[in-house]
Amino acid sequence: MKTVLTALISCMLSAGVLAAPANDPATLGKIRDASMQSGYAYERLADLTDLIGPRLSGSAGAAAAVEQVADAMRKLGAKVTLQPVKVPHWVRGVETAELVDYAKRPQGVTQRIVLTALGGSGATPAAGLTAQVIVVKDFTELKARAAEVKGRIVLFDVGFDQEMADRGLAGPAYGHGSGFRVGGPKMAAAMGAVGALVRSVGGANFRLPHTGATGLSDADRIPAAAVTAEDAMLIDRLSKRGPVTMRLTLTPQNLPDADSFNVIADLPGTDKADEIVIVSGHLDSWDLATGAHDDATGVAGAMAVLETLKKLGLQPRRTIRMIAWMNEENGGRGGQAYFEANKNALGKQIAAIESDGGAGRTFGVLAGVMPGAEKLFVPLQEALRPIGASVVQRRDRIGAGDLHRLETGGVPSFLPLVDMSSYFNYHHTAADTLDKVDPDQLRRHAAVMATLSWYLANMDEPIGRAPAQGQ
Amino acid sequence: MKTVLTALISCMLSAGVLAAPANDPATLGKIRDASMQSGYAYERLADLTDLIGPRLSGSAGAAAAVEQVADAMRKLGAKVTLQPVKVPHWVRGVETAELVDYAKRPQGVTQRIVLTALGGSGATPAAGLTAQVIVVKDFTELKARAAEVKGRIVLFDVGFDQEMADRGLAGPAYGHGSGFRVGGPKMAAAMGAVGALVRSVGGANFRLPHTGATGLSDADRIPAAAVTAEDAMLIDRLSKRGPVTMRLTLTPQNLPDADSFNVIADLPGTDKADEIVIVSGHLDSWDLATGAHDDATGVAGAMAVLETLKKLGLQPRRTIRMIAWMNEENGGRGGQAYFEANKNALGKQIAAIESDGGAGRTFGVLAGVMPGAEKLFVPLQEALRPIGASVVQRRDRIGAGDLHRLETGGVPSFLPLVDMSSYFNYHHTAADTLDKVDPDQLRRHAAVMATLSWYLANMDEPIGRAPAQGQ
Repeated sequence: MKTVLTALISCMLSAGVLAAPANDPATLGKIRDASMQSGYAYERLADLTDLIGPRLSGSAGAAAAVEQVADAMRKLGAKVTLQPVKVPHWVRGVETAELVDYAKRPQGVTQRIVLTALGGSGATPAAGLTAQVIVVKDFTELKARAAEVKGRIVLFDVGFDQEMADRGLAGPAYGHGSGFRVGGPKMAAAMGAVGALVRSVGGANFRLPHTGATGLSDADRIPAAAVTAEDAMLIDRLSKRGPVTMRLTLTPQNLPDADSFNVIADLPGTDKADEIVIVSGHLDSWDLATGAHDDATGVAGAMAVLETLKKLGLQPRRTIRMIAWMNEENGGRGGQAYFEANKNALGKQIAAIESDGGAGRTFGVLAGVMPGAEKLFVPLQEALRPIGASVVQRRDRIGAGDLHRLETGGVPSFLPLVDMSSYFNYHHTAADTLDKVDPDQLRRHAAVMATLSWYLANMDEPIGRAPAQGQ
Repeated sequence: MKTVLTALISCMLSAGVLAAPANDPATLGKIRDASMQSGYAYERLADLTDLIGPRLSGSAGAAAAVEQVADAMRKLGAKVTLQPVKVPHWVRGVETAELVDYAKRPQGVTQRIVLTALGGSGATPAAGLTAQVIVVKDFTELKARAAEVKGRIVLFDVGFDQEMADRGLAGPAYGHGSGFRVGGPKMAAAMGAVGALVRSVGGANFRLPHTGATGLSDADRIPAAAVTAEDAMLIDRLSKRGPVTMRLTLTPQNLPDADSFNVIADLPGTDKADEIVIVSGHLDSWDLATGAHDDATGVAGAMAVLETLKKLGLQPRRTIRMIAWMNEENGGRGGQAYFEANKNALGKQIAAIESDGGAGRTFGVLAGVMPGAEKLFVPLQEALRPIGASVVQRRDRIGAGDLHRLETGGVPSFLPLVDMSSYFNYHHTAADTLDKVDPDQLRRHAAVMATLSWYLANMDEPIGRAPAQGQ
């Protein structure tokens, strides 16, 4: 008798006739455990990184990634939409530098400097430009030395605070350093510099330049590059002995905007199918590496959410929408396009998750919700406790890249909380490769994303909106 | 009265009239302490690396280094000789590679491979060569797959055993890996391969290729390069999905032998001035970095021995001879030239020290002396105990690079014992730079070299010769 009843309920459930006991511990536990046993996320990660590699906006790799992810989602039976996005198309060129003169330089000797152009950098003449380098430690020093800037190359020699990162503050440490990367070239250009260099923003010194976006626009596009920490220190030391002259050659191209897409894959909801819970990562990566941590792990984790629920035959009340964003790294156009398309009905965007901090040890969830809303997540915490991921940290605002516009529009946003202490060792370098991802940690990461997605898609209570922010 | 006597003795001593109480604890302690307080070694290290940079045999950097070291030694008042050495002259060219085909490759996508040519590598055509890569894990597998080798590029995918290095066995771990670098290209060439790749030999994976010498000669000079650990793993994974094809471009040049020099600087002895104690490091470095640990620290440490003794006004009984060897990295011609010049009177070469393991934490001395000779070093150990460097490990044979011929000729050889667990993270890469050297550790390192040099130059007893080895 019991068996017949169970079968009947199961049949009604799968037909969407009855609401599932959505956020009961058993269902949450099933999702968690299925994720923890699945190799799906790692397989998607390996396909993205090994078969395609770098995926900078506008590149063949980015186009291939759109196809690969869409195909994999169609294979799961998800409803796939490619949302058009016009993206900046910046292409790296030659990038070399050498110190051609400095005090006590022996005849015939020059020193090679290891660097990489920053996103949006302008180009030098093909044969390079030669100028004196002035080294500054912050914007205040640059302003104080304004008279020296014209016709020179400015080096912002600001070290990454790894101790801060080790104390759990990798994000703020990165924010401090990347402020010089984003704002420094612009300020140097305004002051008449012919080039701008920043010390690479990241821990672990292995003569690796860390690329990234600048705030440069067509109005002020000077050549801009990141030198390695080692090279910044060398130039700083030599400049204490006397003037240092560099020959710098950077030939990147800023091409017309290219056509690309956000990949959107829906697992339709039942009684609240018009309400959307986004789970996402960004599909584009910088061009130096295969973008494993940044952010193939985020995309793979989001893809695995759908696979796990499909495999378990679970249908959420709200629609769970996997998004692989395009152009997080150098424009944020994917997030903007989605916001523009949905801004008149943001109330239907119930919550949005993005993983973009790599797949380090995940220990819970960062929730951009109203004060007091933490208590709504107690059942989720209980479900994640067995895998050591039960922390829920609340903040008014998270500021995640692709979710920024949604968040400022009032959509609660969520990130997996991860140990990022070594993330910036590899971030935006040639070393952000598959081997850096621990398959076990990726499984835990995917488990948090899946359990959280399900939980948000099935909550009865209003989640609690983050306060709207000025845009 | 006492003061007059002291002054008299001091005067007689400085005139070489009386033998100094050479190996008494006070003198040894003075040398140790003066070294520990000196910035001289670090200054020489900074001059070599910051002002000159890379110093590969035959380069302008190597020539400048010869001059710089000779000048510094003359400034100390040492007797300087430049010993002519004909060195191989290998010059790095273009080095690029990409995977142009593999199973499931999306259209338009290729993957860049990070590599660097190995010393003595031959060149591909300027436009590169394209061939399938076969991945082997050892020589046995290569032989078993002999039929597949012809016309292919062989990749020796042998990982560096960092756990072994962490257990204090960095040298043997390196020896295992570098065996494939030295012998692999030669064997691949003999079997008809058109190119040979080795996985970089070293710990810490930051997409850095580790260069180094091969056993290639004019008879079998195929293109040979080290790929990064990450790229080796990528090629290995892709080759499990199907055939992998690479376009490889390497354009190094093997130029005619060049003129160079060992820099020899003598601090003449007193009653046994014709007997020589060598203290040395090698002046050449690989071309990718400034060769800070390998081996500017060795040269700087050896130079500091003379500076410390000069500053203290101490004259040894035997002549202490600082040698900055040329061409340790890709030929060993400096060591050979010295041996050839001295082989008929090796009995006058009393002992030879070379530091070529970087300036990690130094904890004592490795001594290539006869069994039982350890006990002769007890006073030295006592002198080094206050700086935590009192270990004396005896071995029949050390096998140090430039001392190899002397050692096989029966000259006792010595190395500072250092923690090399992180040495191979940087060794032969672009990241072997000044910032990796801890000034405090370099002082300790120099203190061991100075105290040991003095001790050997003033011992009464015969040191105990290492057994002669077949050459």
